[in-house]
Amino acid sequence: MLTKKELEAYCEDARENYLPHISIDCVVFGFHEGLLKVLILKVKNGGEHYLPGGFLLKTEPIETAANRILKERTGLDEIFLKQFHVFGDPERSKQHFETYKDMLPVEENWFTNRFLTIGYYALVDFFDVTPAPDQFSETCLWCDLNDLPELQLDHALILKTALDTLRLQLNYQPIGYNLMPKEFTMPELQKLYETILDKKLDRRNFQRRMLAFGILTRLEKPRKGGAHKAPYLYAFDLENYKAALTEGFNGGW
Amino acid sequence: MLTKKELEAYCEDARENYLPHISIDCVVFGFHEGLLKVLILKVKNGGEHYLPGGFLLKTEPIETAANRILKERTGLDEIFLKQFHVFGDPERSKQHFETYKDMLPVEENWFTNRFLTIGYYALVDFFDVTPAPDQFSETCLWCDLNDLPELQLDHALILKTALDTLRLQLNYQPIGYNLMPKEFTMPELQKLYETILDKKLDRRNFQRRMLAFGILTRLEKPRKGGAHKAPYLYAFDLENYKAALTEGFNGGW
Repeated sequence: MLTKKELEAYCEDARENYLPHISIDCVVFGFHEGLLKVLILKVKNGGEHYLPGGFLLKTEPIETAANRILKERTGLDEIFLKQFHVFGDPERSKQHFETYKDMLPVEENWFTNRFLTIGYYALVDFFDVTPAPDQFSETCLWCDLNDLPELQLDHALILKTALDTLRLQLNYQPIGYNLMPKEFTMPELQKLYETILDKKLDRRNFQRRMLAFGILTRLEKPRKGGAHKAPYLYAFDLENYKAALTEGFNGGW
Repeated sequence: MLTKKELEAYCEDARENYLPHISIDCVVFGFHEGLLKVLILKVKNGGEHYLPGGFLLKTEPIETAANRILKERTGLDEIFLKQFHVFGDPERSKQHFETYKDMLPVEENWFTNRFLTIGYYALVDFFDVTPAPDQFSETCLWCDLNDLPELQLDHALILKTALDTLRLQLNYQPIGYNLMPKEFTMPELQKLYETILDKKLDRRNFQRRMLAFGILTRLEKPRKGGAHKAPYLYAFDLENYKAALTEGFNGGW
């Protein structure tokens, strides 16, 4: 929670620079070797938890704003970000409204406005990220999906919707280019899917279906090492991978 | 294009009732017996073409606004509407800006604001619809997708994005409940898919894949009529159909 002085300064700056009524919230999923986490901010003093987010500059494209916000929180450029839903319940920011309504007159008070928030999700290797808190936050942390703190506003709904969308996306679009090593085995790729879906998959079905998508190239050399039967190595066929990102898998109609 | 007087009245009403900077545009696809069309408005006097759209009342949920706008244009209640993307290019409403900027001072002029528009699409039986123009329009018409007039603003992009999303959706979610008769043959359902995808599909692959989705019930009786080999009739299994709408097909992971 802001002091009156901080609120005044923030609102003056916000009214001058940002488009009112619109915010952006980002669900950043982090994957690394079989663990899936999500990036959460913890507010100074109060200790409430939020998804990373921000506002849209008056003449800024929304994709640019989402990338800017993500870069500030993660240090990463050119993350694969996907807009997934706008949350527009008129009551969604009531909590902010109640907190700040008596501190400044409504016409000057940024936080008593109604905000629609545009949700973006990203999936990154969490070892590549340097989490950085924003001006309201004490920390920016990777949290386990199974052990989340209570999230403020409608951020639990935003997170759930992002996860549902990501899981649905696994059925029709490729994933994993920035999460897998350049060359990987089929069980390593299966682990990524199992982690996101939070369930075990059948090894043979996984391999058959994944190969049918046409986004993998099997490399000539098996993985080095002393194994009796060395596993095949695969790499993404980037051309087919990118085509499938926009058109869906060739397993489609 | 509005006269100065009409513009003044419209802007006064809009400032009082609507949330600034946000609009809603609807892509209404209409299907009937093998034809796919889209609902387009033609403006009075000027004759420019637009997608049906509107604004969000200050305390209205966005889904409610989209349904309200759609009901006004089609006469239909409870259409299956799907939010698919927010279009936020800062230049997207430049055309409106240029048209209206000299007619009213900026602070009173609704149309010189930047607008983000939330895109919704719907798929309806066009025989159920009574198209009704809005206050700016002369007509509201079903247009062939292959013979569209030039659309204003970024409405051609919005339409293309809706069609791409609908086609991608065919790979992972069911479609057609409100478009097919209660009982239908496999070739009739295939025709719906072929019309949306604008391509021929293999009969046997279509049947195999569609049955694997688990959303159809094969009825005991074949279709009546004199045919030598009467075709099987199917109906949607509504429980599985609805589950697949939120979770994707059971052909998923």
